Amino acid sequence: MREARVSREDGGWTASPVGLHRVLAPTGVLPQAAERLDASPELWPGEVRIRVERLNLDAASFRQLSDQYGDAIKAEVLAIIESRGKMHNPVTGSGGMLVGVVDEVTPDSPLGLKPGDRVATLVSLTLTPLRITDGLARWDGRSEQVPAEGHAILFARSIAAVLPGDLPVPLALSVMDVCGAPALTRRVVKPGSAVAVIGAAGKSGSLSLAAARRAGAARLVGVVPHAREAEALTSAGLADEVVIADARDPVALAAAVGAPVDVTVVCVDVPGCEHGSILATRDGGTVIFFSMATSFSAAALGAEGLAADVTMLVGNGYTPGHAALALDLFRTSAGVRALFEGRHA
Amino acid sequence: MREARVSREDGGWTASPVGLHRVLAPTGVLPQAAERLDASPELWPGEVRIRVERLNLDAASFRQLSDQYGDAIKAEVLAIIESRGKMHNPVTGSGGMLVGVVDEVTPDSPLGLKPGDRVATLVSLTLTPLRITDGLARWDGRSEQVPAEGHAILFARSIAAVLPGDLPVPLALSVMDVCGAPALTRRVVKPGSAVAVIGAAGKSGSLSLAAARRAGAARLVGVVPHAREAEALTSAGLADEVVIADARDPVALAAAVGAPVDVTVVCVDVPGCEHGSILATRDGGTVIFFSMATSFSAAALGAEGLAADVTMLVGNGYTPGHAALALDLFRTSAGVRALFEGRHA
Repeated sequence: MREARVSREDGGWTASPVGLHRVLAPTGVLPQAAERLDASPELWPGEVRIRVERLNLDAASFRQLSDQYGDAIKAEVLAIIESRGKMHNPVTGSGGMLVGVVDEVTPDSPLGLKPGDRVATLVSLTLTPLRITDGLARWDGRSEQVPAEGHAILFARSIAAVLPGDLPVPLALSVMDVCGAPALTRRVVKPGSAVAVIGAAGKSGSLSLAAARRAGAARLVGVVPHAREAEALTSAGLADEVVIADARDPVALAAAVGAPVDVTVVCVDVPGCEHGSILATRDGGTVIFFSMATSFSAAALGAEGLAADVTMLVGNGYTPGHAALALDLFRTSAGVRALFEGRHA
Repeated sequence: MREARVSREDGGWTASPVGLHRVLAPTGVLPQAAERLDASPELWPGEVRIRVERLNLDAASFRQLSDQYGDAIKAEVLAIIESRGKMHNPVTGSGGMLVGVVDEVTPDSPLGLKPGDRVATLVSLTLTPLRITDGLARWDGRSEQVPAEGHAILFARSIAAVLPGDLPVPLALSVMDVCGAPALTRRVVKPGSAVAVIGAAGKSGSLSLAAARRAGAARLVGVVPHAREAEALTSAGLADEVVIADARDPVALAAAVGAPVDVTVVCVDVPGCEHGSILATRDGGTVIFFSMATSFSAAALGAEGLAADVTMLVGNGYTPGHAALALDLFRTSAGVRALFEGRHA
């Protein structure tokens, strides 16, 4: 372990909980905004080193790289990691996550990990120092699942979840990938609430329905785009009402939901769902936007234009205990499991 | 007044509180999303007609039109209003607001207006049916303030504020233009809270500081970009601490704020302030994003990347009573008045 450098006020640096000490260029920015990180294996106080087993590239990043580079994708991924010290696609701006085994933990680390734990990192690869040592020899370049050898660094303020022994790794990752949505849903939904989940048959949607049920929701409306998903969601038994609507059509969405709900959870990853979700929510209610396709200005101006007194939350991917909650919902809800397994089949 | 058409289920239409009955094309969308509205003067149940005195074009819209059309701007604005039935700039997507006198109120209107009231509309011109009858003869095309004659329609679910008799109209409009920020700030801030306002010497920033003080904030940090604004804010006496920082630099912003605060209010209209405002907020705290330059994905991914358990709110421009609160804060705070008058001077 390196010695901590002196603090900034003393003219130097100390190890930063958010990893500022690993930023090589430009100086003074957060690791995610950095062009280049220091991925060297020696640990600073508070850090953890992971022996990498597999990278899960962000789907949008993989698609872009695959479209642009074809069979040369492997060389390009290696070049990005080598030059940036992290897997941060410069075109899409996205990263992904990784799975590995904890190799070394400094005494100051607050993450609660121990050597030998098999973990998934739940912070983006765009801010995770990473070095690859096997040239990605076992990857065929045809999937975002990338077998890899090397190491990665977790800062003091980071998120990693120990992989459960009772679930296949891809399934556990698939659950943990969307664990922010059910955690925030459980926090917001009160006993007796009416809740609508848009994109309810998807991964984050089905977990959010289960979380809302656990929080004591009295009326659960699941909105899906077509009959096939409606059938799957009905069979899963997670919602009290399953309705079909195009979430981009505000009038149709509000009509499908019916009586305005206390909480609307937007889990469908298409643009243009802001106005409909606002319109489906009662005055004094809350809309939780989990879709990364959400437009800030469409939400802000939409609520104003509709004179809608709704609280609008930016879905934060991090809530303490989120991975454990999602895995627990998955284990205890046959309906959630059925929907996930349908997607993995 | 027109008779209400029959309800949709019966194969026709009724007057909609959000104005669906005024949408000509495409059918079924909300008025803001419409290409063309019916701006005819006859009222549907629930509506109010305003005799227009002045349009206030959105600043970005005026700039774009002025740059593209120069002296021909007047003809272009008239063409937009004539063809769309509303002042909805097709390039910027923005509108503005208007001032006028209430002409006719239908019995079903819930807005509490009466004929003769001089009002400002606080919903966007992008969704307000509008017809101009004087060819904008008194406008020189050199300012976003457009003297105009004609009429506009307010739907049942709309927002209009009666202009106060004790303030010049431009000043009252300037206050009401940003009244969403102090209203939501007062709702979120609890007695004893530490609060940081980013862009604190601006209009929404200074009103938010005053609102936080009224809500009982114990520590008020005002963040400004340079010494001139720091002097003005210090003289205004609205903050306990005035600090200078570039809000786009997360590390610098967090350092300037010091001990993380319970509530951060982002009022500065530049992109890239998401990570700094998250970093300046304590775990369990709240960030209110009022800047329309906010990036949804930067906020969502930023909080996750920083493992920050913060509640992030999309600043809703509408909170009941927001205009009255803002005007009251303006009247009772000499510091807010001084900052506004400095901007109007």
